[in-house]
Amino acid sequence: MRRACITGGAGFIGSTLADRLSADGVEVVILDDFRTGKREFLAELLLRANTLLVEGDVLDAGALARAVEGCDWVFHLQANADVRHGLQAPRRDLEQNTIATSNVLEAMRAAGVSHIAFASTGSVYGEPEVFPTPEDAPFPVQTSLYAASKLAGEGLIGAYATGYGFTGLICRFVSILGERYTHGHVFDFYTALKRDPTRLRVLGDGRQEKSYLYVQDCVSAILSAARRHEGEPGTHIYNLGCDQTVIVDRSIAIIAEHMGLEPSIEYTGGARGWPGDSPLIQLDTTRIRSLGWAPTLTIEQAIARTLDWFDRNDFAWQEPASGACAGT
Amino acid sequence: MRRACITGGAGFIGSTLADRLSADGVEVVILDDFRTGKREFLAELLLRANTLLVEGDVLDAGALARAVEGCDWVFHLQANADVRHGLQAPRRDLEQNTIATSNVLEAMRAAGVSHIAFASTGSVYGEPEVFPTPEDAPFPVQTSLYAASKLAGEGLIGAYATGYGFTGLICRFVSILGERYTHGHVFDFYTALKRDPTRLRVLGDGRQEKSYLYVQDCVSAILSAARRHEGEPGTHIYNLGCDQTVIVDRSIAIIAEHMGLEPSIEYTGGARGWPGDSPLIQLDTTRIRSLGWAPTLTIEQAIARTLDWFDRNDFAWQEPASGACAGT
Repeated sequence: MRRACITGGAGFIGSTLADRLSADGVEVVILDDFRTGKREFLAELLLRANTLLVEGDVLDAGALARAVEGCDWVFHLQANADVRHGLQAPRRDLEQNTIATSNVLEAMRAAGVSHIAFASTGSVYGEPEVFPTPEDAPFPVQTSLYAASKLAGEGLIGAYATGYGFTGLICRFVSILGERYTHGHVFDFYTALKRDPTRLRVLGDGRQEKSYLYVQDCVSAILSAARRHEGEPGTHIYNLGCDQTVIVDRSIAIIAEHMGLEPSIEYTGGARGWPGDSPLIQLDTTRIRSLGWAPTLTIEQAIARTLDWFDRNDFAWQEPASGACAGT
Repeated sequence: MRRACITGGAGFIGSTLADRLSADGVEVVILDDFRTGKREFLAELLLRANTLLVEGDVLDAGALARAVEGCDWVFHLQANADVRHGLQAPRRDLEQNTIATSNVLEAMRAAGVSHIAFASTGSVYGEPEVFPTPEDAPFPVQTSLYAASKLAGEGLIGAYATGYGFTGLICRFVSILGERYTHGHVFDFYTALKRDPTRLRVLGDGRQEKSYLYVQDCVSAILSAARRHEGEPGTHIYNLGCDQTVIVDRSIAIIAEHMGLEPSIEYTGGARGWPGDSPLIQLDTTRIRSLGWAPTLTIEQAIARTLDWFDRNDFAWQEPASGACAGT
């Protein structure tokens, strides 16, 4: 790996990956439109030699062509990651995830770039019946526009791998936590308690069981798999997660304790935070572990890192936020 | 079922379905742009009362809105069905299959229509390891742009079923044969032998094993499943096929015998007709059979019906065709 483009490279995971690649001596091209990415995350990176920022999004063919030019890898992390509100704007996932991934693949094909790593999601398993859920679980039924759009991206990558000899690395993530984390349930709970330390409204019944992964562990896993499959055309699929789960109530307890609060908890009820929310996500990570990778932090340690980082970085969470809190 | 829109309703399967629905007393709205659909197929249908033709395609929002207005079902059969040439125009499957299906769903949502039946494909199983392949086979890797775009359509329907209470019926077809058949391997072989009765060039090694279904059996299966799940929100997935398979060489023998020819056969070689072609498609049809459905014709009988129909309908095949012959 000599030169890598990271779409969504100013985002939470993208900027963390960019720092790691750059530290490893890889030339990094960031493509980001800063809708959700943050300039603060690139402050150190852009001081390094051999780093390029292309400001634009993946629906802008010109920006995309400039960004992938001369790269040997594209890490396609840009996405609409607003899972919960898909039903209010059903075209957004189609455009920003499915069509965007097609654009990235076409730009790569035009530029002769044939290695892509793709940030997919454990949500593509829908409501699985097998736990922990392996990569070859029974063919699932999709339950959210977000997951459907990610699965569409996976399908495109598989077709490009077969048809054009691409190397496609598909990483199905659980939710990711850690430094630079800027959305999801820990964010929602933390900011809600900053606004009103006396009470917390929670979507669902607080019993949803989720798995999380620390962002540096996530990046290590992506890089392990990318280096393993470099020069190996085909589709390579990995679950990224850890073996534990945590229930939403336990996350809340950790956050409240960290903040020194004892809020009253109000549940909206039901087993799901929103339509399409899966009440349990736990991925089988045997395949990624077979590459020698293992997470370094537990979920509770990852939550603690996230909260410490919030405490030190007001800019990351002092933005207007909406009412109820998510379970993701 | 009172009024049904059929996208691609002037096509092979769509027009056959239209005739059946109309004969059952259902009001039929045909949406077709006649790129591949044929006016000849609608000649009898449009003489009937309560039949409407909307000329346009599913990327035309106005035509789509007019077509779904007042319907209780949409049978979404319109698609780019040129599986083999996907790699020469990779945006076509995205636009005509994935984006088109999103458009259909959005038009339905706007019009308050919540029942959709979708023509998907057995190709979504990629290169399966289980034969016959059931609906819940291990989560497959996609190998063609066509199948990837159909899977993307399935995913959208699943998300609309979960999020908006749609009833989504997904039918994964093998290749279909019978009256009005206008593309695929029997078409290619027949027309090639009409042009040059002395020899036939065949993609692959002639050993590819395929399953086919007679078009009237296909339509019966779709209608059985639609009536079974009417008013039952959720995603309902059915394989449509028959239990036998036929190898390409046997199809050729049937066709040559029907035409009274003994051509020399030239194979391009390899187990696949083209990149992403699956060397064996055989679907487990236990689920659709559990509704009481069963095919009425064998594959060889369906091939014979197709050839008889070609003999009587020159218009259907007397068009310019390209060089080598497909295995589908």
